[in-house]
Amino acid sequence: MSAERSTAARDNQEGLHPTQALDDTVHQRVRLGVLTVAREADLVEFSFLKKQLAVTDGNLSRHLKVLEESGMITVEKGYAGRRPRTWISLTREGAQALDAELRALRALVLRLETPRPVPDAPDR
Amino acid sequence: MSAERSTAARDNQEGLHPTQALDDTVHQRVRLGVLTVAREADLVEFSFLKKQLAVTDGNLSRHLKVLEESGMITVEKGYAGRRPRTWISLTREGAQALDAELRALRALVLRLETPRPVPDAPDR
Repeated sequence: MSAERSTAARDNQEGLHPTQALDDTVHQRVRLGVLTVAREADLVEFSFLKKQLAVTDGNLSRHLKVLEESGMITVEKGYAGRRPRTWISLTREGAQALDAELRALRALVLRLETPRPVPDAPDR
Repeated sequence: MSAERSTAARDNQEGLHPTQALDDTVHQRVRLGVLTVAREADLVEFSFLKKQLAVTDGNLSRHLKVLEESGMITVEKGYAGRRPRTWISLTREGAQALDAELRALRALVLRLETPRPVPDAPDR
């Protein structure tokens, strides 16, 4: 049994299924997309995010608001020439939350990739 | 523009950010938990799922209904002795959907683990 399997087995006994470590604010598909794209640059423009994540203006705005209110991103309005622009950047708290999500996702993927013995038939 | 930035730009043209491959039905935290636990056994009992995922009866029931209506699990009621029991099992469709989710999660984790150079300052 590998070290990872021992850890997974222990977590299981303690009731710590990897999905319990997922935070709904971060895990939601569009918000996870925003955080991961924002991690890759200092500043990300609204329309770039919208295109990358294939979402509507309204949908993206709603998710940005949730992330901003949770302190995970900052949203800054400005201009590029005469064109209004909205810039998004990841906060330190957002980066930490994304790291925690990634640890949980890695644990989940690892658990599912590790072959498990066939369990006993349940009592039915 | 670096090679990685070019790749990001190309992915963008193709609209293939890894989170776009996530299916909201499968990706949601509790439902992802249900599917992953169900993958590990032929039949999973309701109260076991509830404990593993640390959710309420109502919350779990709601998510099971979504998964059942999407054809990803079957829900079967019965008895263990005189005690009523609800058994959950993964369908073939559910297993395929979970596989697709895992492929997307692996791609996302991989992308974030790959060091990227500091991108060019955006045009602001």
